[in-house]
Amino acid sequence: MGSGASIRGFSCCWRKQNSFPETDVALVYRFESIAGKTKRLGGWSRRVPSGRPQASSICLDDSRRLEGYNDQSGVRGGSTVNAGTHAEGVPTEGTTSPSRLDGVDRGVDRPRILSGVQPSGKLHLGNYFGAIRQHIQRQDQGDCFYFIADYHALTSLREAEEREKAIAAKNKAYLPRPARQILAENIRDVALDYLALGLDPKKVIFFRQSDVPEVTELAWILSTVTGMGLLERAHSYKDKLAKGITPNVGLFTYPVLMAADILLYRSHLVPVGKDQEQHLEMTRDIAGAFNHAYGEVFPLPQAVFNDTPVVPGTDGQKMSKSYGNTIEIFAEGKALERAVMSIVTDQTPLEAPLDPERCHVFALYKLFATPQEVEEMAARYRAGGFGYGNAKKALLAKIDAYFAPARARRKALERDPGYIEEVLAEGARRARAVARTTLQLVRERLGLLRSPAT
Amino acid sequence: MGSGASIRGFSCCWRKQNSFPETDVALVYRFESIAGKTKRLGGWSRRVPSGRPQASSICLDDSRRLEGYNDQSGVRGGSTVNAGTHAEGVPTEGTTSPSRLDGVDRGVDRPRILSGVQPSGKLHLGNYFGAIRQHIQRQDQGDCFYFIADYHALTSLREAEEREKAIAAKNKAYLPRPARQILAENIRDVALDYLALGLDPKKVIFFRQSDVPEVTELAWILSTVTGMGLLERAHSYKDKLAKGITPNVGLFTYPVLMAADILLYRSHLVPVGKDQEQHLEMTRDIAGAFNHAYGEVFPLPQAVFNDTPVVPGTDGQKMSKSYGNTIEIFAEGKALERAVMSIVTDQTPLEAPLDPERCHVFALYKLFATPQEVEEMAARYRAGGFGYGNAKKALLAKIDAYFAPARARRKALERDPGYIEEVLAEGARRARAVARTTLQLVRERLGLLRSPAT
Repeated sequence: MGSGASIRGFSCCWRKQNSFPETDVALVYRFESIAGKTKRLGGWSRRVPSGRPQASSICLDDSRRLEGYNDQSGVRGGSTVNAGTHAEGVPTEGTTSPSRLDGVDRGVDRPRILSGVQPSGKLHLGNYFGAIRQHIQRQDQGDCFYFIADYHALTSLREAEEREKAIAAKNKAYLPRPARQILAENIRDVALDYLALGLDPKKVIFFRQSDVPEVTELAWILSTVTGMGLLERAHSYKDKLAKGITPNVGLFTYPVLMAADILLYRSHLVPVGKDQEQHLEMTRDIAGAFNHAYGEVFPLPQAVFNDTPVVPGTDGQKMSKSYGNTIEIFAEGKALERAVMSIVTDQTPLEAPLDPERCHVFALYKLFATPQEVEEMAARYRAGGFGYGNAKKALLAKIDAYFAPARARRKALERDPGYIEEVLAEGARRARAVARTTLQLVRERLGLLRSPAT
Repeated sequence: MGSGASIRGFSCCWRKQNSFPETDVALVYRFESIAGKTKRLGGWSRRVPSGRPQASSICLDDSRRLEGYNDQSGVRGGSTVNAGTHAEGVPTEGTTSPSRLDGVDRGVDRPRILSGVQPSGKLHLGNYFGAIRQHIQRQDQGDCFYFIADYHALTSLREAEEREKAIAAKNKAYLPRPARQILAENIRDVALDYLALGLDPKKVIFFRQSDVPEVTELAWILSTVTGMGLLERAHSYKDKLAKGITPNVGLFTYPVLMAADILLYRSHLVPVGKDQEQHLEMTRDIAGAFNHAYGEVFPLPQAVFNDTPVVPGTDGQKMSKSYGNTIEIFAEGKALERAVMSIVTDQTPLEAPLDPERCHVFALYKLFATPQEVEEMAARYRAGGFGYGNAKKALLAKIDAYFAPARARRKALERDPGYIEEVLAEGARRARAVARTTLQLVRERLGLLRSPAT
């Protein structure tokens, strides 16, 4: 290591990157300066949430150290100088000091992306275009942690059971499932669906939330730094109260568990719908409160908004299970045909020209067709003499063809239930390793030192 | 096993037991009836909370089965009969049916007793006579689970840190400790105190709450069956609001974690102060809500009220850390003398007779002395010419002598920090085995099936 007149240190700068607009790239170089001549010794880069460098966005170093990483070349004591110098762009300052940066250079030019998936039964086109497609696209854009949110599902499991009973009351042939069967089957179904639709468990850490119970420990810890006022202001909880739902404590503290989900993996990016924006803001508040109270542990995660196209249901409202207007992704044959044919249309006579922009069939068709096909279909609408029946048939063919490979994959996967278990177990194993590292760090900050033998 | 005309079954009755008034004894017999002649095949007994047999008070069987117990002689299918017959007293009914009882006969004639101890710094005489002494007495009366409540301590850890800073602001020589040091030292201190005062880790499962993080998982699960109204009615939370404390979510959901503490070990008896009575009632409500929603898992625990003698502080108010009027258990020498000599007394002249019943020194003396010594002291008070100074000296000698063996033990233990760690690790191991059994049962009921490899 440096001695006498030599100075070694780190420099750091931020750079915008257009191919991944939500993040900047942090570039970090090691340098050596001997007798006034500065030489770069090598460097590394990683994506960080965009904007000015954030104190919390690069504190992964602690965990790396915990994981056994031990940087020998960093600036530490002795005659070397803790140089805050910068090679270009934004200088390092405060918490981006060299000693906090060592350990980030293990090929992590990728943000951690986290998302939870509710195991709430059969998925439909609204789920697909609103979230699943983006989930699958993102698996190449970062280190993705996707989990099946079964702990969250408990907050409404009894309602799911009641719904089954209501169905059974109307339909004598229906055998209502008990809660445990509903949840176990929904978990399995959503795993099957995602794998069939292209989620690659080699790229994504795909796991069951409850396979990493550390998240509930972190949730308790975070609850002790979360003000009641924060939760009381949550829109989604107030909405539920307004709807007359008798709230359980889990519904109220849901945002704390969600914060734990995100922070346990020290995620950088969280793809969410607009309805989840406030919850993510709360996660940032909670992370900030912890960091303030006990020292920096958590990066402040950033929301990434999915571009959610309009997906009308068969009745023209937003497609949603609660409206009973869905077209299921894995429907096929007669069931799929029935669903598509039931899409409401207006009463324009067959010969008359149709306005594609006011037609739900066309809106759905646009989701599946190439721009050229969309053009051609619009022309046919406007020419008249085409009729909604033909449009529906064209849509049906598109849906059928689009999901045919996924359907085939799903059937193959269903025949091999062991595989799903293996995937989830392996995902849990990888997720848990990260979770334990974070928790160890958190526990150290709190003085909760676990007995060695446990 | 029974065949043809033979009938085998279980019978069950409850009996009061005076030596342990909080519990009854459940007596269970196996019987065999052949051609109308009934023969007892043997039986077992165990203590259960007193009162009418409770559905939930004997459902330990499930866990026993999970732990590998497999009763070969129970009534199961075939030609044997599931007999609800009773030999004497209260008949078995509902959930106390034979099939729920197999597995209880492994020598458990003892209730499970659970108590949590706050790691809140130096313990004083009020703590000792209000709780610690009873804890130590009870270690022979049941299977005791005592834990150091460090997760709970997090809800007020920041305040503890602020207090240290306030002390340091007044006293320049005082180095305020950071949160993690406060908690770690308080945990160690309370463990040392209990072991020095006679807690026997061979008899009691003595552990750190956070060494069994399963409790936070159960707390989340219970929160999804706990109505918000229940928590909103909690007196202690309302009191804190009234005192102007800015509440964190952990303070609000504290009763759910407390319920998880109790239910994780399926405890029967919980020694509490009167101020905790409502919290225990809430635990029973939460246990009932879970049992109702997902099937019987939890016994409904019963409060056992400690007989708490009046322990006046040096200013005559109730001895309490927050009043700054404590006499510490492990004080000695000058410090102990200073504390005892500072007890306020009235201005009665030395020669005049004194009223022992109005004297705080006498009230404290009564806690340590034999009835005969108390009589003699009272006589000296009434005779006059005795003086509070002499009374204080007598009290000082009593306290000093009473705690001398504990002080010596504590010093020996302090020299062997590894021993404390061993005790807590062993306690955690034993507690965790029970906790995991309960959680497995809970998870099965919910459909949360853990991946085999995790």
